[in-house]
Amino acid sequence: MAKELTSRSENYSQWYNDLVLKADLAENSAVRGCMVIKPYGYAIWEKMQAELDRMFKETGHVNAYFPLFIPKSFLSKEAAHVEGFAKECAVVTHYRLKNSPDGKGVIVDPEAKLEEELIVRPTSETIIWSTYKNWIQSYRDLPLLINQWANVVRWEMRTRLFLRTAEFLWQEGHTAHATEAEAMVEARQMLDVYAEFAENFMAMPVLKGVKSANERFAGALETFCIEALMQDGKALQAGTSHFLGQNFAKAFDVTFVDKNNKIDYVWATSWGVSTRLMGALIMSHSDDNGLVLPPKLAPFQVVIVPIYKNDEQLAAISEKVNEIIPKLRKLGISVKYDNNDNKKPGWKFAEYELKGVPVRLAMGARDLENGTVEVARRDTLTKETVAIDGVENYIEKLMTDIQENIYKKAFDYRTSVTREVNSYDEFKVEIEKGGFLLCHWDGTPETEERVKDETKATIRCIPLEASEEGICIFTGKPSKQRVVFARAY
Amino acid sequence: MAKELTSRSENYSQWYNDLVLKADLAENSAVRGCMVIKPYGYAIWEKMQAELDRMFKETGHVNAYFPLFIPKSFLSKEAAHVEGFAKECAVVTHYRLKNSPDGKGVIVDPEAKLEEELIVRPTSETIIWSTYKNWIQSYRDLPLLINQWANVVRWEMRTRLFLRTAEFLWQEGHTAHATEAEAMVEARQMLDVYAEFAENFMAMPVLKGVKSANERFAGALETFCIEALMQDGKALQAGTSHFLGQNFAKAFDVTFVDKNNKIDYVWATSWGVSTRLMGALIMSHSDDNGLVLPPKLAPFQVVIVPIYKNDEQLAAISEKVNEIIPKLRKLGISVKYDNNDNKKPGWKFAEYELKGVPVRLAMGARDLENGTVEVARRDTLTKETVAIDGVENYIEKLMTDIQENIYKKAFDYRTSVTREVNSYDEFKVEIEKGGFLLCHWDGTPETEERVKDETKATIRCIPLEASEEGICIFTGKPSKQRVVFARAY
Repeated sequence: MAKELTSRSENYSQWYNDLVLKADLAENSAVRGCMVIKPYGYAIWEKMQAELDRMFKETGHVNAYFPLFIPKSFLSKEAAHVEGFAKECAVVTHYRLKNSPDGKGVIVDPEAKLEEELIVRPTSETIIWSTYKNWIQSYRDLPLLINQWANVVRWEMRTRLFLRTAEFLWQEGHTAHATEAEAMVEARQMLDVYAEFAENFMAMPVLKGVKSANERFAGALETFCIEALMQDGKALQAGTSHFLGQNFAKAFDVTFVDKNNKIDYVWATSWGVSTRLMGALIMSHSDDNGLVLPPKLAPFQVVIVPIYKNDEQLAAISEKVNEIIPKLRKLGISVKYDNNDNKKPGWKFAEYELKGVPVRLAMGARDLENGTVEVARRDTLTKETVAIDGVENYIEKLMTDIQENIYKKAFDYRTSVTREVNSYDEFKVEIEKGGFLLCHWDGTPETEERVKDETKATIRCIPLEASEEGICIFTGKPSKQRVVFARAY
Repeated sequence: MAKELTSRSENYSQWYNDLVLKADLAENSAVRGCMVIKPYGYAIWEKMQAELDRMFKETGHVNAYFPLFIPKSFLSKEAAHVEGFAKECAVVTHYRLKNSPDGKGVIVDPEAKLEEELIVRPTSETIIWSTYKNWIQSYRDLPLLINQWANVVRWEMRTRLFLRTAEFLWQEGHTAHATEAEAMVEARQMLDVYAEFAENFMAMPVLKGVKSANERFAGALETFCIEALMQDGKALQAGTSHFLGQNFAKAFDVTFVDKNNKIDYVWATSWGVSTRLMGALIMSHSDDNGLVLPPKLAPFQVVIVPIYKNDEQLAAISEKVNEIIPKLRKLGISVKYDNNDNKKPGWKFAEYELKGVPVRLAMGARDLENGTVEVARRDTLTKETVAIDGVENYIEKLMTDIQENIYKKAFDYRTSVTREVNSYDEFKVEIEKGGFLLCHWDGTPETEERVKDETKATIRCIPLEASEEGICIFTGKPSKQRVVFARAY
């Protein structure tokens, strides 16, 4: 058990870091703030990508690829956008190195200075809308429904693996529409896609809502978001979908001729989720033994460990295992048979628990005699002895059960720490306990700012389904509906 | 026919540029040398990625992700590597912008200068081997068989869409092995994977060989390559697989304890193909009417165009088409039904020819009466009238025929322009005609350099299967086997 984790109760933050490293998900690289996503972590990300990509395509989107670099002047074209994004970014100023005069290594060639600096994209609205200008003339060219899978860079000072890194992987959708209503439908549709993905695949319940002005995307008129709750009671923004109005069309002069032959600016949305979802996935379900993965995103769903004393036993077990494996695969269940002779079964059990493999089968000599196999669930850590005959159907059902159970567990936890709070005194006590606090708020950025300064809590979202009206807990002014306060990642 | 192309005979280079733009594959961006890959072009790239990724995984590789940035000092650690890659690259020197004092836009914040400059990866050997150092201690940690899908940047002065761009997309495999022999087997295996992909999916015949020292990857002991021949008689390097020996292990001090408890440096390979393959695909098969795509890589394989005079006819045709579509899909054939009323059939025919859709079905009122459909092949531009009943089987066979036919056509063309040349005088005449020239060469870089200076031809590869021995066409010195000379992209 060399890979023991810090427990969550002891130090939640350390538990997370330990888990990311020890489960071989990611690690810090030699480049400050940039991570290496290790094969096991990347395999989970690939599963996420595949499902999201399918969902995007089913809703009519296509993929494309736009440049990594953005000319510096582009960032300034949309006033709010530059405030939000131009500040902490990687700036390319030169395009050549040369041998150092002292013969040691290379130096930047001062003669190879770019006329205009290039910014490594922190997000691609500007370069994409400068491109869309050439693609859109008429309403017949609309809508444009394009997504990009890409890396982006934001020069974060304090970084944490997956949650906040200087470079991260994401997808960014950028759509163009003829009408405001159509763009709004798109922004809402993609919010629903994200929520469906979070709940059905990540088994992570999310609140759907709108961001307050303070938390809105730089350049958006409205930012929709899904908010999840981690096991330590802190919120995590898991995905955003922005209604951009005509801001970027105006900044890049993208107009079109409508059906009535009138010229108007194009309406826009953008929406994205990132490798941050990996952090959300880890913190939603995992425990002190390691990762707990939903079957729909596990790189392999079943691991089979033979327990044997000699080669003869191993051969007999392997024979049986090799009958089970194709039956599982036929049902679409991915399986790994770990017959590695260098490791003891106990070591393997701990390892696959750490890695969150949903189901472990163990088979020994006595199982062979009895025609049984031991089935262990990662989510509940329970074991059962099951007849080999028909075990594939048992496991197929288990996949559904586990997926549902970890969702339900996360949902019940969230319910247990979501409560209405009706006074600021109560708020200051309750916020220390974590969770979502449903409070009345007067709708002003000033009040949100003051609450944040005093309690470190922010408005995570204004729920799409409004509550009753009331009185702001901070100012006593009228409030149209309760909003969700929490401390957040 | 607003989208007419320059013909190949008139101006091959212009034909290529026209085709890339007009078939909506890619275009130049606002950032010098960086391209935008448009949705139709990206859909072909996604098909390529999917097949390659499957082949990599079937040969035991897993994906991971390493940082975009490389500390400048890393590039200098492997002596040959820095010569090849450190020169033309994008250099990040700052990490912040600030508002310009004149209130116009943003400027680079001089206070946010990086202590050490970061290079946007031109290739990732250095950052990956600095990481592998922590992953490898014992022979039990080997082999590491890792691939990365990523963007890379090489500051090319003269760029052409897909063929040579400052930023491009690629995959780069980086493997670590306990023995020289194992690393060599890996490098050769991946060459075979690339060749299989080129021939079976791209329908593009390739020569497998070894690069001469002049053309070797910077840091490799041996570079294996697949070389294709374009329709203008110029060669195109389509993929490379490098045996890196212990060079990078030594540069980054990556050692391991072997089975006999002895410490040794790790053996390495790297291998990659890029969006350059898109250029190769286009130039291998396309004609003066547009793209010709192999069915295995076409974003959609069949397009159905209705020909009608009124809504009633369209409804009747659509009903029939909607019976055919599921039958095709059931056979794994992708179909688009273009019932867009804004365009005439003639426009659609030209458009789908331009886009290289392998098979076009056209159905009119008379076809309905006769129970037939017109089937047009993109590769031969021939048409046949076929009974609707069972047309799906006819088309399934056609997919195979077209795939084979365009391979054969490319193969026959290559054969026709591949010839042995036995004197330098003959060489100077023949090289002007293009194609592969099989010549004896004395094995020295000096001779290759002089031939290149005088004729612009380089050694594309030393074939894996050696010919007879002979006499160098340039120096008259002994030659062990014929090598392949050509002018190249």
